[in-house]
Amino acid sequence: MKPAFQRVILYARFHHRAHQGVSESVEQLVAFLKKQSIDAYVDVETAEHFATSLPTLPRDKMDAMHDLIVVVGGDGSLLSAARIAVSVDVPVIGVNRGRLGFLTDIVPLSLEQQLADVLAGHYTEERRFLLKTNIHDGDKIYFEGTALNDVVLGRGSETHLIEFDVYIDKQFVSHYRSDGIILATPTGSTAYALSAGGPIMHPQLQAIVLVPMFSHSLSSRPLVVDAGVSIDLLISMQNESSLRISCDGHESRMVKPGQEVHVEQNKQFLRLLHPLDYHYYDTLRIKLGWESKYQE
Amino acid sequence: MKPAFQRVILYARFHHRAHQGVSESVEQLVAFLKKQSIDAYVDVETAEHFATSLPTLPRDKMDAMHDLIVVVGGDGSLLSAARIAVSVDVPVIGVNRGRLGFLTDIVPLSLEQQLADVLAGHYTEERRFLLKTNIHDGDKIYFEGTALNDVVLGRGSETHLIEFDVYIDKQFVSHYRSDGIILATPTGSTAYALSAGGPIMHPQLQAIVLVPMFSHSLSSRPLVVDAGVSIDLLISMQNESSLRISCDGHESRMVKPGQEVHVEQNKQFLRLLHPLDYHYYDTLRIKLGWESKYQE
Amino acid sequence: MKPAFQRVILYARFHHRAHQGVSESVEQLVAFLKKQSIDAYVDVETAEHFATSLPTLPRDKMDAMHDLIVVVGGDGSLLSAARIAVSVDVPVIGVNRGRLGFLTDIVPLSLEQQLADVLAGHYTEERRFLLKTNIHDGDKIYFEGTALNDVVLGRGSETHLIEFDVYIDKQFVSHYRSDGIILATPTGSTAYALSAGGPIMHPQLQAIVLVPMFSHSLSSRPLVVDAGVSIDLLISMQNESSLRISCDGHESRMVKPGQEVHVEQNKQFLRLLHPLDYHYYDTLRIKLGWESKYQE
Amino acid sequence: MKPAFQRVILYARFHHRAHQGVSESVEQLVAFLKKQSIDAYVDVETAEHFATSLPTLPRDKMDAMHDLIVVVGGDGSLLSAARIAVSVDVPVIGVNRGRLGFLTDIVPLSLEQQLADVLAGHYTEERRFLLKTNIHDGDKIYFEGTALNDVVLGRGSETHLIEFDVYIDKQFVSHYRSDGIILATPTGSTAYALSAGGPIMHPQLQAIVLVPMFSHSLSSRPLVVDAGVSIDLLISMQNESSLRISCDGHESRMVKPGQEVHVEQNKQFLRLLHPLDYHYYDTLRIKLGWESKYQE
Repeated sequence: MKPAFQRVILYARFHHRAHQGVSESVEQLVAFLKKQSIDAYVDVETAEHFATSLPTLPRDKMDAMHDLIVVVGGDGSLLSAARIAVSVDVPVIGVNRGRLGFLTDIVPLSLEQQLADVLAGHYTEERRFLLKTNIHDGDKIYFEGTALNDVVLGRGSETHLIEFDVYIDKQFVSHYRSDGIILATPTGSTAYALSAGGPIMHPQLQAIVLVPMFSHSLSSRPLVVDAGVSIDLLISMQNESSLRISCDGHESRMVKPGQEVHVEQNKQFLRLLHPLDYHYYDTLRIKLGWESKYQE
Repeated sequence: MKPAFQRVILYARFHHRAHQGVSESVEQLVAFLKKQSIDAYVDVETAEHFATSLPTLPRDKMDAMHDLIVVVGGDGSLLSAARIAVSVDVPVIGVNRGRLGFLTDIVPLSLEQQLADVLAGHYTEERRFLLKTNIHDGDKIYFEGTALNDVVLGRGSETHLIEFDVYIDKQFVSHYRSDGIILATPTGSTAYALSAGGPIMHPQLQAIVLVPMFSHSLSSRPLVVDAGVSIDLLISMQNESSLRISCDGHESRMVKPGQEVHVEQNKQFLRLLHPLDYHYYDTLRIKLGWESKYQE
Repeated sequence: MKPAFQRVILYARFHHRAHQGVSESVEQLVAFLKKQSIDAYVDVETAEHFATSLPTLPRDKMDAMHDLIVVVGGDGSLLSAARIAVSVDVPVIGVNRGRLGFLTDIVPLSLEQQLADVLAGHYTEERRFLLKTNIHDGDKIYFEGTALNDVVLGRGSETHLIEFDVYIDKQFVSHYRSDGIILATPTGSTAYALSAGGPIMHPQLQAIVLVPMFSHSLSSRPLVVDAGVSIDLLISMQNESSLRISCDGHESRMVKPGQEVHVEQNKQFLRLLHPLDYHYYDTLRIKLGWESKYQE
Repeated sequence: MKPAFQRVILYARFHHRAHQGVSESVEQLVAFLKKQSIDAYVDVETAEHFATSLPTLPRDKMDAMHDLIVVVGGDGSLLSAARIAVSVDVPVIGVNRGRLGFLTDIVPLSLEQQLADVLAGHYTEERRFLLKTNIHDGDKIYFEGTALNDVVLGRGSETHLIEFDVYIDKQFVSHYRSDGIILATPTGSTAYALSAGGPIMHPQLQAIVLVPMFSHSLSSRPLVVDAGVSIDLLISMQNESSLRISCDGHESRMVKPGQEVHVEQNKQFLRLLHPLDYHYYDTLRIKLGWESKYQE
């Protein structure tokens, strides 16, 4: 049993298609927290979209030792909350109101019981690493971002196959002509990278996968490397337009021919909490539908 | 520069289709070694197929501190030599007379120069891990084997899809109905596992990949886990015949419904030597044909 | 509305894991048929495993103009019934007691209503083509078989990758080193071929797909050709053991190095009946789980 | 032997990276044609980029009975020429100055001999079908295009997965969340669709393949249907931005949420000529590198 939390910060995003479910869980959560001997707050951004009776807590007042962020939503919401949580080193747990929910363990129907256990110190804490990336042309840095799932180099406004060179630890790997490339963490290996043919990587594996997207070379394959490497993408001068770099499919920035994209492990980790009955392989099997039973 | 070797042991296998090339390199090697101030031997098995003027060296006389095994052939030959080399902790280097040659770095045309450099201590030593496996039914162990590339559970004499459960570190992962499953090391990730849709894993990554073969579940995907795990395959009672376990596509043994297959990292590593100009990504790119140049 | 049937022949196979469900539907079917003004029979093989009050009808007495075979089971049972049905040109409809049930449209819960409609002439008849294959070494033919789903060349007792040449309409296509090759009809394109990476082909498409299994060449791909072609597989002399040819994963025969396997469209088609509300794409979408609804 | 041609029209595009090779072949071709008893012209667009002594021939003067268009370049150039050729029903043959060259059979080194044979009537003529597409919202049509390779629905300016419904012959197939979908002809099956996991389809197969791009549903697969179907893509209102429709990766147009994309076989075919020694499977095997020979 771990030390219990002193403050809970509620985080939710507005999403037109899932709004009702999220609102229900937010209300249930507010009512539940009021009954607990714990200080409850709502995140400042969340307060703009959800009317609750809770006070807001500015992010620079969050505290790594005593706070917990509870996210209501899908993996997309947890990805957003993660960026805040990582910057203040506060742990996060999710109530699943989204689709697959690889990251959000708490089921709305048993929200009160599961959360009570966590608040009482019955949980496990897992460190998930992030990628950090920047776009530069030598001296000048144009963009910096972090990603829990993936950094994606995509076509942007280029209508042809795009061209770039990949270097790992300054070693030339290959020139690619493709729709782009996905650089994913183990956390992101069950997201976009999976639909692009990447492998599933156990969350505790210290590895990054590079998944070429529709490569012109038919022998291109996903490549798994140690998480400690530095990766550089050199955008070829042959591209006629700017390409796009995205972090977690969210923040994105154009990158010009001749510029470079650097990617490496982020120093700060995400502290992701799980209920004690969480098992990674169970989540995997159930979410991906490996469970389907047949009769014949 | 590392300490130079005192004895070289020559290893080659008979292979009807590649015999001429192998013989040529063996002869060139014998002539070259005679000119060096080094003791040269031939492996006992090799001596059965190749007539040389060199004495044989029994395996129990091999010495981890002073010996080097030089393999002539393809990756298949190096896999065979690796089993011997690992048991006596002697390093190995390969002269490529096979097809892809991911493991055999020395090119026949520059054999003398490249080998002279290695013998003079100009090389890098890489540790490659192996898998060890056994078949048991609780107390009784029926088979033990090691594999540098992969342990494969295949159909054997079963003509239907086979069924088995996979456990990792005693956690249930999934039930599979498929043609089998490949458990590959990073070394094996560019061999059979690659043609089955597995990712390429950098040789220094401490990871194992599980690649389901033609799984009945369309959402089955390769799964990469830490090399320190223990993996258990439980052969379902529903299988009507015996299945087959193979190590490196070489040693194989039948496994019956109800029996279990255990796989984990082998304690002894392979000491694989490379010339100083060896770069993994160059090998990868060239061997897999990512280099093809286009004009338009 | 089509001419109604005069005789119904019941077909079911014994399957230890699905026996109870099949028996229930068989009993329900027998009771239902007794209430109809129609002659009901049971297939001779079915009579060995299921005790019913119905008389048996020998296969040589079956009649293309007036009979209907009703299969209870999964796609595997329908594949078995199809071989009988094709030989006597009698139409077939299936009651789904199996897993996916791409071929068996009638749902046990609405068996009586759906079957009453069919018996009253409310159905559509679809022609599905089969493959026929033989193994020969020039003059002598060793085996002849037919397949509704697929003809598969597999490893058999060979433990290495197998080697063979493929010819289409006497034109050389390629030499393959692989685990084998699947030749599938549109009907079989949602079966084994699908798990091997083959495309889905609409049942009315007159095409055959060749799907290489774990080909050593990373640029090998499924190849779709017109159903009217003749395909020849030449088993290379390099194989050290006999390989195996299977029809629908059921009938199988060893094939030796040097022998040839010939495959072409079978002259006789399967007459497969569907209820009027059958839509191929609905079946596809539902059976393959494309329907899963997400919230976020 | 077929009737010989009376006029040859030379077609080439400017391409900065391949310009030298193309220019060389154009010059060689001009010199060769001057020695033949045949009228030689240059296409009006080609005349803007390549200075030749040949007169130009306006497209509305081209004549299906007596003319031949000779394209110098890669498959991209042939795709461009095909749009002109189809509109005037003039046959096309290609001199390969591009990368893969599935469509351009004549090798620069034997240009004169191969072309002399064709001009003497020694060739085969193949009909390749095209797709035609339009974007509409019921009554109003916004765009019409044709494609020899493929019609692609892509992300356009949408940064999220895009959503759309697919209907075939007015039957609902599925809702997709993905990066888009490729609708390819057999000719296009060895182009972009191949890198997206689609099958190879023999050029004479009357079929279209629908290849989902990175579908969110892991059980999505390429779907091959008869070339005679009509296909409709309904762009979901959930998309936040406009998507893009491209024909042969060349012409492209934005398509808005709520609009529909219609695709069907084009009435006019491409008349593609081949030298007499052309064999499709040889081209396939060589261009895709299936030929690689191994030693072990």
